[in-house]
Amino acid sequence: MPKILAITGGVGGAKLALGLSKCLPAQDLLFAVNTGDDFNHLDLHIAPDIDSLTYALAEQNNTELGWGRADESWQFIETMSSLGGQSWFRLGDKDLALHMRRTGLLKQGASLTEATAIITKAMGIKHVIAPMSDEPVRTLVHSDRGTLAFQHYFVRERCEPRVTGFDFDGISKATINPLIQSFLPICDGVIICPSNPFVSVDPVLTLPGMREALTRIPVIAVSPIVAGLAIKGPAAKMMAELKIPATASAVAAHYGDLLSGFVLDQRDADQQSAITPKSYVTDTIMDSVKKRIQLAQGCLKFLAELA
Amino acid sequence: MPKILAITGGVGGAKLALGLSKCLPAQDLLFAVNTGDDFNHLDLHIAPDIDSLTYALAEQNNTELGWGRADESWQFIETMSSLGGQSWFRLGDKDLALHMRRTGLLKQGASLTEATAIITKAMGIKHVIAPMSDEPVRTLVHSDRGTLAFQHYFVRERCEPRVTGFDFDGISKATINPLIQSFLPICDGVIICPSNPFVSVDPVLTLPGMREALTRIPVIAVSPIVAGLAIKGPAAKMMAELKIPATASAVAAHYGDLLSGFVLDQRDADQQSAITPKSYVTDTIMDSVKKRIQLAQGCLKFLAELA
Repeated sequence: MPKILAITGGVGGAKLALGLSKCLPAQDLLFAVNTGDDFNHLDLHIAPDIDSLTYALAEQNNTELGWGRADESWQFIETMSSLGGQSWFRLGDKDLALHMRRTGLLKQGASLTEATAIITKAMGIKHVIAPMSDEPVRTLVHSDRGTLAFQHYFVRERCEPRVTGFDFDGISKATINPLIQSFLPICDGVIICPSNPFVSVDPVLTLPGMREALTRIPVIAVSPIVAGLAIKGPAAKMMAELKIPATASAVAAHYGDLLSGFVLDQRDADQQSAITPKSYVTDTIMDSVKKRIQLAQGCLKFLAELA
Repeated sequence: MPKILAITGGVGGAKLALGLSKCLPAQDLLFAVNTGDDFNHLDLHIAPDIDSLTYALAEQNNTELGWGRADESWQFIETMSSLGGQSWFRLGDKDLALHMRRTGLLKQGASLTEATAIITKAMGIKHVIAPMSDEPVRTLVHSDRGTLAFQHYFVRERCEPRVTGFDFDGISKATINPLIQSFLPICDGVIICPSNPFVSVDPVLTLPGMREALTRIPVIAVSPIVAGLAIKGPAAKMMAELKIPATASAVAAHYGDLLSGFVLDQRDADQQSAITPKSYVTDTIMDSVKKRIQLAQGCLKFLAELA
């Protein structure tokens, strides 16, 4: 079995991650997850991308909403709202328990990695979810409404501000998670899941030493842009605002010579010639678990061919 | 209208408090509430007696359980338990929102009094709920299993340890809530609601200056012991363990010369001769809102006669 590092952000990336988890045993697959959109809210440490992956791998993701936990209820947040408390970040009753548990573990001195391991084990997840770093990195969104903390941009302002750029506060002092550090030398390939290149993947790639460590390993990325649209989230809107065409080939160009290969959707097959690395055209719409597994298998085969 | 201070603890006292709130307008009635059983749990400031009164006055108390908030759900605590977190203190989803709101307000610099005012106003309560003090006082239960924080004794250990005595940690440095301080000089009478004398009422009475301030005001107490049993909670069990007869007259003796009058249940009419202050015998079982109002009316009449 090859040893694969999967870099992933939110809900879109988590779909491919689930597929990969069905193809590779725990010791051969490590998830490196963006923590740039983590934030402190109601004195809780909220880690949206870690949680999206946790819920996806536990098959406890809320498929109706497209985010959060399955079989969720909203008594807490509705009561909080009625008491005049903050309610713009919709914390479900079950989801809240995860944030409280993590925050409690962190306050007891656990690292984010340790807290994540305890929670994922309790949820029956065998694969390791590695936060990209145990040190805080916070994505800042520069926009026509000023600089916003990521969740303020993403949830409170519903991605409405026009973005002009991003910063990853704290990244120069952050170190790559030791679990990822020790996996990199034995890693046979890296898959960048179809997550937002700017705010989900770039924080991981911008960690000091990360790009250098990846140069000796075949890296492929799966386009989060299909037919000019983001399957989920503001990637296409951001690209337009940044004066980048909202295309799969522009995503490939964004990652540049980091990539050995690029996976794009069959709807964008005509862009293949505009893509520098080798490309693999397939159906990337993962609207069932079966299709998540199929895309994961396709990615693993493509990586093997590149090696 | 007379101006009345009502001293109250948990659910039993809150029943009479609701009755009083239906008899007296907000400016003529102040609730002085025990905070000795407040505690920090999951990094939340939990104030069980303030909340019991809040839910009772908002008529949002859970009548099925006999504690907590009406129409409650338990998704949070069940998930917390499944994640290996602490779940011995049963936080309902709605109840949790109140604790989170209060904790947030306290962290923003509000006093417990201010936080309580914001929450009670949001819940439509017109009367003022005054925590006995804004400084922390913590009831410690000395027992055959050692010294326990009150909620550990009360909830976690289900009142099973045999008590040997109590301490109110921090009380020598605690000051009476300024709202209570300024109400005392204009107060016409004090009603000690049928709460546990040792752990609900004694913390209030033990605040520096409280007993002295009450000497010039007629004070009546309503027995929480009826026919040798506590209507709710461990009062009778505690009395047995402290080698005090579990009787209404022993409750009167416990309060001693603080009392101008004592209200006992008709089932205990034979104890009247053993009670030093004037006594009033009536039906004290408040199993309906109507009976809560009737007992409140009886207490107010009794107080007026004593004045």
